Amino acid sequence: MKFTEDCIARHMRPITGSAIREIFKLLGKPGMISFAGGNPSNAALEPEVISELAVEVLQKYGTTLLQYGATEGFAPFIESAGEFLKETGVQAGPGELLPVQGGSQAWDLLLKAVIEPGDVILAEDPTFLGALQAMHIYNAKVVPIATDENGAIPEDVEEKIRAWKPKLMYIIPTFQNPSGVTLSLERRKKLAELANRYGVLLAEDDPYRDLRYSGEALPAIKSFDEEGWVVYMSSFSKYVSPGMRLGAAVANPVLLRKMTIGKQSADVHSPLITQAIVDAYLRKGLMPGHLRRICGDYKKQLDAMLAGFRFFPEGSKHTVPEGGLFVWATLPEGLDAKELLPRAVENNVAYVPGTFFYVNGEHENTLRLNFSNATIPEIESGMRKLGEALKA
Amino acid sequence: MKFTEDCIARHMRPITGSAIREIFKLLGKPGMISFAGGNPSNAALEPEVISELAVEVLQKYGTTLLQYGATEGFAPFIESAGEFLKETGVQAGPGELLPVQGGSQAWDLLLKAVIEPGDVILAEDPTFLGALQAMHIYNAKVVPIATDENGAIPEDVEEKIRAWKPKLMYIIPTFQNPSGVTLSLERRKKLAELANRYGVLLAEDDPYRDLRYSGEALPAIKSFDEEGWVVYMSSFSKYVSPGMRLGAAVANPVLLRKMTIGKQSADVHSPLITQAIVDAYLRKGLMPGHLRRICGDYKKQLDAMLAGFRFFPEGSKHTVPEGGLFVWATLPEGLDAKELLPRAVENNVAYVPGTFFYVNGEHENTLRLNFSNATIPEIESGMRKLGEALKA
Repeated sequence: MKFTEDCIARHMRPITGSAIREIFKLLGKPGMISFAGGNPSNAALEPEVISELAVEVLQKYGTTLLQYGATEGFAPFIESAGEFLKETGVQAGPGELLPVQGGSQAWDLLLKAVIEPGDVILAEDPTFLGALQAMHIYNAKVVPIATDENGAIPEDVEEKIRAWKPKLMYIIPTFQNPSGVTLSLERRKKLAELANRYGVLLAEDDPYRDLRYSGEALPAIKSFDEEGWVVYMSSFSKYVSPGMRLGAAVANPVLLRKMTIGKQSADVHSPLITQAIVDAYLRKGLMPGHLRRICGDYKKQLDAMLAGFRFFPEGSKHTVPEGGLFVWATLPEGLDAKELLPRAVENNVAYVPGTFFYVNGEHENTLRLNFSNATIPEIESGMRKLGEALKA
Repeated sequence: MKFTEDCIARHMRPITGSAIREIFKLLGKPGMISFAGGNPSNAALEPEVISELAVEVLQKYGTTLLQYGATEGFAPFIESAGEFLKETGVQAGPGELLPVQGGSQAWDLLLKAVIEPGDVILAEDPTFLGALQAMHIYNAKVVPIATDENGAIPEDVEEKIRAWKPKLMYIIPTFQNPSGVTLSLERRKKLAELANRYGVLLAEDDPYRDLRYSGEALPAIKSFDEEGWVVYMSSFSKYVSPGMRLGAAVANPVLLRKMTIGKQSADVHSPLITQAIVDAYLRKGLMPGHLRRICGDYKKQLDAMLAGFRFFPEGSKHTVPEGGLFVWATLPEGLDAKELLPRAVENNVAYVPGTFFYVNGEHENTLRLNFSNATIPEIESGMRKLGEALKA
């Protein structure tokens, strides 16, 4: 018989891939200035350094790196990644840190470990598209949390915990994607307290944390976690290389064991060569200088973008992030960023309409702007062109 | 409140990790000869070659390898992997081949795309433990298929298709893990025909195929697939390196698109550096000579093991595989391979009791023996010691 989609799981049928995929196809147009992506800058990547480290670790560990490894991870990397996270206030004891294929896999494995179809997850609104898609794949019900310029609003979280009895909440506390907003210290404590009081897991997705250009670093929500309800998800994608796909999940040992079992059948283990390269990167102390350099560059790009909002329509607002890769803009009511996108693209500038990042859409007057993938002259000219397109 | 396991998904609670994990812990004992693993030989791994290729591809592609890549895969690798699979009779057209983290991820993504809780999967009995664990994680019902020295028995498959209306069947056609048996040509055609006639997906897990030491290579089941019901899962783990975690899934474009969406939120994409290294390995034509060399070595190890069965208790039987990494032994009725294991370990030799590989356990008189991780003198002495332990 002819192949039919009837064999696809019912909850997978409506999922057709990232909503912003079509936008990314436009970016190949010559002369396009893209504020649409979320990649680190190419200038932040170091192929020569990685090449040297690859040679070094293959020399040092030999066949060990090419053989099967433990699902639990490559011991030296578990140690150095744990050390790296200490600065956030996250203490990973034995059996509490799992190497993963970027923060995305940490989230996937957590969903796999805890979600039954129909379970409720609270998520900041707006939030990261990839995380939303994963929640839909696991057939969870996503309930939005209200946010403001200090991040998720604890009163709303508490109300929704009582009303919905969620299994899990998903929070990006630092330089949030897409909003650029950072959860305040007081709210970090409060969310940890709510997770512990009500027995709700809190996934703290924190991949941008060390891309800070101003202000003071804040301790992770996980650092206020008393009974093990918070799962901390870190990633080296934004610091060393997204293409290597390496991150770390920290959770209490019972939960981490279930995530490890999920990983065992998902991909057996993370590649040893990438774990060994990032381990060597950390042990050689390359991270602090590298972060200083890229943060210096990103800060200038951010400042250029913030200055460019003078070209935006009167009444527009925008966040002023202290780090990360994104600025979030709100146009005057009545303007529709999705409808305006083709005009911007005609003007050779691209962004992502904000509506895609909301659990239930709407918010048509919002947009996300990325500043890490354009030079300062490109940002200046791009913001001018974008302003023209939005005002036309 | 205290963290409790109540937050773990109900179907995940009974899953406590690979059943043979405890056996692997014994292998650290000094002087132990292990027939328990499933790793390629260290002598089959080439850290110097991989190191050179890493330098070369990082030089050639630069920051491209360190940036985000497409979930669909690194274009040169998609091409060279497709070329590599042609010899099996598998033709991967555009949108039909997805790079994955080893065959395990191909299976995980297929389950994610099609399985709803309670769906039925037919699996050869005995079968690969990791695949079984993944089926349980997706909360599928596993129904065993009867097998003999030519693999899965088509009459039993057809009967079970009619009785159980499965969504999927799982077949390892070549040098099966754990039995070492190869599905005959006639049965390959028949299983493809059944999958197409009844509209049942067939996952063809074929990671050992090119480890052939005698006999003629057979075309893949997928080569007889007319309407796209067969998913072919290949892996470079047994040929180049398990630690790099790289394989390829081939499926019809509609199904592969759903698997790609699953991968998008599971880990975004496979690391570009491993895709580029294996691509270079294939393009330089290193594979045929490498396979000839390792197959020459493995054949000698297999022969030494087969010769060692003279030490086994009278009435024992064993498979005579034409390739792969495993021999399957059946002891006289009444002997229990699980009970005998401690005695073997005392004698400094280890194996995996066969009961673990059966969907419903039992078959206590069977065991799996791996010959790729011991030298010929170790195999000779190990088989003698094992025979003594089994007879004592």
